[in-house]
Amino acid sequence: MTYSLVSKMRSGEMKLEDVIAFAENEGFDAIELLMFDFSRPTGEIKTMLENHQMKISCINAFVDLAVQQEDTHSDNIALCQQIIDKAVELSAPMVMLVPAIPQFIASEEDKQKGLPRIISALQKITPYAESKGVVLTIENYPALQTPFCSVAEVTNILDQVPGLKLTFDYGNMLVAGEDPLKAYEMLKKYTVNVHLKDWQFVTEETETQSVDGRYLKSVAHGQGVMDYSSLFTKMVSDGYEGYCSFEYEGELDAIDATRQGMEHLRKQLDQVMARGLHH
Amino acid sequence: MTYSLVSKMRSGEMKLEDVIAFAENEGFDAIELLMFDFSRPTGEIKTMLENHQMKISCINAFVDLAVQQEDTHSDNIALCQQIIDKAVELSAPMVMLVPAIPQFIASEEDKQKGLPRIISALQKITPYAESKGVVLTIENYPALQTPFCSVAEVTNILDQVPGLKLTFDYGNMLVAGEDPLKAYEMLKKYTVNVHLKDWQFVTEETETQSVDGRYLKSVAHGQGVMDYSSLFTKMVSDGYEGYCSFEYEGELDAIDATRQGMEHLRKQLDQVMARGLHH
Repeated sequence: MTYSLVSKMRSGEMKLEDVIAFAENEGFDAIELLMFDFSRPTGEIKTMLENHQMKISCINAFVDLAVQQEDTHSDNIALCQQIIDKAVELSAPMVMLVPAIPQFIASEEDKQKGLPRIISALQKITPYAESKGVVLTIENYPALQTPFCSVAEVTNILDQVPGLKLTFDYGNMLVAGEDPLKAYEMLKKYTVNVHLKDWQFVTEETETQSVDGRYLKSVAHGQGVMDYSSLFTKMVSDGYEGYCSFEYEGELDAIDATRQGMEHLRKQLDQVMARGLHH
Repeated sequence: MTYSLVSKMRSGEMKLEDVIAFAENEGFDAIELLMFDFSRPTGEIKTMLENHQMKISCINAFVDLAVQQEDTHSDNIALCQQIIDKAVELSAPMVMLVPAIPQFIASEEDKQKGLPRIISALQKITPYAESKGVVLTIENYPALQTPFCSVAEVTNILDQVPGLKLTFDYGNMLVAGEDPLKAYEMLKKYTVNVHLKDWQFVTEETETQSVDGRYLKSVAHGQGVMDYSSLFTKMVSDGYEGYCSFEYEGELDAIDATRQGMEHLRKQLDQVMARGLHH
């Protein structure tokens, strides 16, 4: 949620409490908090959450665990432990790490050298999270230069880090050229959190390029190529019990896009549930 | 240069030595090196440079000096000192810092809180660079959330950090809504390095949005709105003696775009020089 409203926070149009209030008014159960300033006192955030009876479902953070320098690598592992401590303070059940700074991966060689650094760091951080009762996740990220974009790439990491789980981003799977529904099937055993966005393929250049060279653009849910009816059918049938987190990063006003997108998603889910009841 | 070929390095299509060889073949005097892995041994890079009789004009690095946590702030200041040491080892006369991670500035509040952190860090790093004979610069960066985008913003920082200089990016000035030629005039007393790109205003969403809400897209030099004839006339008349660094970040093949763009820029410069000779 907050992720989707970052543009409004950047421009100063909304502050964190405005975002929390908006989420409350729109009927969300919780927000995902993208955190950059880990020295921010948790007290004020807790008060805002209490004022609006809102919870944090997951704290998202970008931390460079691919870095080659030993001292920075150790510092960044310690930073992840601080983030987990913040999650405990904020009663957030989960942390999602983007375990590299995508812009810092400047070559195929960087990608290959970064991967074992990421894995060894996550092998240290995950037991720490477990000891604190926090679930640690990574996300399949929509940038081909990161070594955690495709099904094979995230599976490789997850299989080497016991206890690490997945925030499954349905739309992001298009970047790696995956069939998103098949990707869901292959990754559901790791999945504890789900991100929902919609994409459209466009001819003009955008920030996001898929493996076949086509560009992707974030559009309001229902306007793009993502099939939410099929995903929800599978998730309901699988008894998925985690959160679904709404994401929008396009050019529409984020408030309008959230309302429009949520209406579409709720309709899809209602239809799936209604079909389930008829059987 | 390397910046412009980062896409080819990310995909694995080119390695650093290929980039250096390309720069040599295209008649460049030097390359700008965007560095992320500061633990990479300088010996191998020096050998590549010697093999192709190429120099490094400037090392570019993104370092988060806006970070609020004290220990990370100190570590990142130390990292900048290491980068300056690398510049000495590589005989690079200059370092250009992007002194915050633009993606990490998530709110107007982050921007305001980050600025004094950046200034205090640069006040420590600049004397270190001077003691090593390296010129430290910042760039006017094309993202409005950074506190170093507009003429007023970069001037504010430069005036508070004695010895700090500017890598002037002519095209980036459009992001802050500045007249790029007037910006050149206002900033030339700080300018020791110049970045040359061309932009086109487009209606579709891109990564780069200007202060008036319009989107900018990188295009081959000569295809966009930047007036290089006027800039070169001023620079020649001012006796500018620094490097001009070619940048291209668009959707054309970077090799083709470099050749096409450089042909345009060389023609503009030749015309300016020829006019100069006739006077």
